[in-house]
Parts: sequence; structure tokens; C-alpha cells
Amino acid sequence: MSYQLLYWPGLQGRGEFVRLALEEAGVPYVDMALRKDGMPKIVASLDAGKVDHPSFAPPVLKAGDLLIGQTANILMYLGAKHKLAPRAEAGRLWANQLQLTIADIVSEAHDTHHPISTNLYYEDQKKEAKARARDFREERIPKFLNYFESVVRGGHAVGSRLSYVDLSLFQLIEGLRYAFPKTMARLEPSYPKLIALHDKVAARPNIAAYLQSKRRIPFNETGIFRRYPELDK
Amino acid sequence: MSYQLLYWPGLQGRGEFVRLALEEAGVPYVDMALRKDGMPKIVASLDAGKVDHPSFAPPVLKAGDLLIGQTANILMYLGAKHKLAPRAEAGRLWANQLQLTIADIVSEAHDTHHPISTNLYYEDQKKEAKARARDFREERIPKFLNYFESVVRGGHAVGSRLSYVDLSLFQLIEGLRYAFPKTMARLEPSYPKLIALHDKVAARPNIAAYLQSKRRIPFNETGIFRRYPELDK
Repeated sequence: MSYQLLYWPGLQGRGEFVRLALEEAGVPYVDMALRKDGMPKIVASLDAGKVDHPSFAPPVLKAGDLLIGQTANILMYLGAKHKLAPRAEAGRLWANQLQLTIADIVSEAHDTHHPISTNLYYEDQKKEAKARARDFREERIPKFLNYFESVVRGGHAVGSRLSYVDLSLFQLIEGLRYAFPKTMARLEPSYPKLIALHDKVAARPNIAAYLQSKRRIPFNETGIFRRYPELDK
Repeated sequence: MSYQLLYWPGLQGRGEFVRLALEEAGVPYVDMALRKDGMPKIVASLDAGKVDHPSFAPPVLKAGDLLIGQTANILMYLGAKHKLAPRAEAGRLWANQLQLTIADIVSEAHDTHHPISTNLYYEDQKKEAKARARDFREERIPKFLNYFESVVRGGHAVGSRLSYVDLSLFQLIEGLRYAFPKTMARLEPSYPKLIALHDKVAARPNIAAYLQSKRRIPFNETGIFRRYPELDK
């Protein structure tokens, strides 16, 4: 199976959750964001005139003849193919449920810097961003992390083995640390299981090699997790 | 299989997407929102101390021994059991992808009245709500509906048969009409395939009977789709 990851160049964004699964699985893939001829293919994957199953937005995974959109959907597919999720129905559903809950906090993290419109600059919604970020720091991050802490059992979120959910929880912690360093420094002692899981993922050989490579795009202020000091306290 | 739907009483909310699938399938289920002893069970389904697979938020479906959270995840499960989704992998993934995209616009519809915090009253974020609702009406609804219109082929969103995605698109149109009647009156002529699909779903015997029954809770201002005239133009 040859994979192509179709995602915007220059940022981790939601594409990063897919990259981490591909890297952990150790399967070859072409990251079209790094290819000179990538952009037309990324744009075509969103175009109902050009593909049978267009996506509303990237990331999109091309897997042979399949074109798969929506991050959690891509991960469900990769999890089944590459032993990054349980085979049994109950475990598969549980992994998907947790991944969708991660998707929810990721959307909320995005909305801290764009609470009014994705079509306006951050600077044009900064006041509202401060209010939304405050709620996110004080109410939402603790609520979500309390939840995720409660489901990590035996070192993993799903069953007794690594799954794509663990990889995504690692990325969530990374992103929150980047965007909200003061908040996370304060909160992390309350989440020992999540932090241990994060550290365990970071130490896995394929992930450690990836994080050291040029393929890991640094966090920056075009992604979902952005460091605007005025939004952290 | 005996089903229990665990969702807050008094509103359609995200639970409604699940209700529509259960009603179309014609399978018996207990709506715990209507039971006097329902609330403790709803709350327990969110509690890691009480259940193995707690949910972050309702709706939750109890299916025998399984407890399944996240709307799109529940629908994927029901779709497979009750012929409301294709059996083949490509079709299942496509249905899930579309459902997750519906989930995205549903979240954005919610945020039109709560752009800053779900912990504050609407009245305390009304100014921001007006700005967000304007963007939603002018940019986001057309972008999403253009997309969904482009994927309805042969009268259905997924393959050539009814799926849970069609039911959810029906509910999306219903909700948008309730919350944004002026906007939808203006936009609907541009989406003939979606409106035809909506009407076809409404006319299905099980759905038509459900919509006429007391089980269909009217839209109201505690749900996701709220009619605040100042947010519609």
C-alpha cells in the first residue's frame, strides 16, 4: 500500500495526528506538503468535480484507490491496518470515541485564537480571543484532561497496548504545552498518567526518530496550537 | 438487542441524530430522558468510577453490554447493525467522513450563540454572538452546504440507498431552518439536491410518524439550534 498525506504545507495542524500514526507504524508515505507538485493534488482532493469522495478540508489520506478525509476517520483506517487499534468491535469503538473527544478539544484550542471567524486575522478578534482563551484555560482544559486522565489505565488509553489514541494524546499535550506553557506548568502535576503516557510515546523509537527529524515541522503561529503570550496566564 | 439512549431531557441536541437513526431502523429503544430514573444513569455514563468506557458528554448509547459515546461513533455502530450504511469499507469510511463533517457544522452552529464560553449565559456574550453568527450565516453555512450539495448524487449522500448520513442532513436542514429562517429562505434555492433529500427523509414512513409523535421534542432555546432573531438576517 502506498500512502499519500494531503495536507497544507508549513504547519503541523490536524495533519500531525496522521503523521504520528504513519511514523509509528513505520510505513512509507509521501507527504505532499513537501512536494513541489503537491498543492494541485491537495486542492483536487477537496473538489467534487475531480474526485469521487471530496473532503471538506484536509488532512486527506490517499491509500491506493481510497481517498479518506476527517482526521479521526483516517486514524480509524490506519489503526485497523497497522495494529494501532484493537480488532474487536468494543475496542475499535472506544478508540474512535476517544479520538473524537480529542478532536473536540483540538477544535476548541483552535477557537481560542479565532473565536469569531476563521476569515478574520487573529489581531481583529484579539479581545474576544482573550475571553475565550481564559475560559479554555480555566474550564475546558481541566475538564478534558480530567476526563482523559480517568481513562488511562495500565499506561494506555485503549486496552493494554499502544493505539493511535495514545499518539494523539501525546500530540495534544505537546500542543497545549506550546500554546499555554504557564497553564500547563500549573496543571500537569494533576495528570500523572497522561504525562507518563506522553513520555512513553515520545520515547518510542520511531516517534523519537521522527521528532528529531526535519519531517517534524516546528509548532508555529499558522497551526492550531499557537503561542500568543496574551492568551496564556 | 435492547437499546437505551442516554441524553439530557428536554432538548433535541446531538441526541436527535441518534433518535432519527433508531426511529428509521424501527428498533425498540428506551429514551432515558423520558424516564423518572433516567438522570442517575445518564450521569453514571460519564463517570469513570462507575463505567468502563465513560463518555465526555452525552449522547451515549447503551447497546447490551456496550456503552458507546460520541454521536458519529454511535451512528457508525447503528449504521452497521441496521443497514443504515454500506457494508464495504470504502462506503463505511465515506459515511463516517460525511457524518464528522456534519458534526463540525453542528458545533459551529452551537458556537454562534456561545462563542466565548458554554459556562456563560447567551445574554453575557450576545455581542460576540452577533459577530460569530454573521460569519456563520455569510461564510460557513454556504461553505458547508455547497460541500454537502456536491456530494448528494442519485438522491443520497452515500451510495444509492438511504444511510444515517441522509437522516443527519435532514436534521441539519431542520435545525438551520429553525435557527436561521431568513438566511435559509435566501439560501435554499441554491441547494436543490439537499432540499430534495430533506423532503424524501421527512416522507419516510417511520420518520414521518416520529415527527408527528410526542417523542419529537420541539426545537427550543436550550438546544444546539436556537432561534435568537438578532442572530439571523
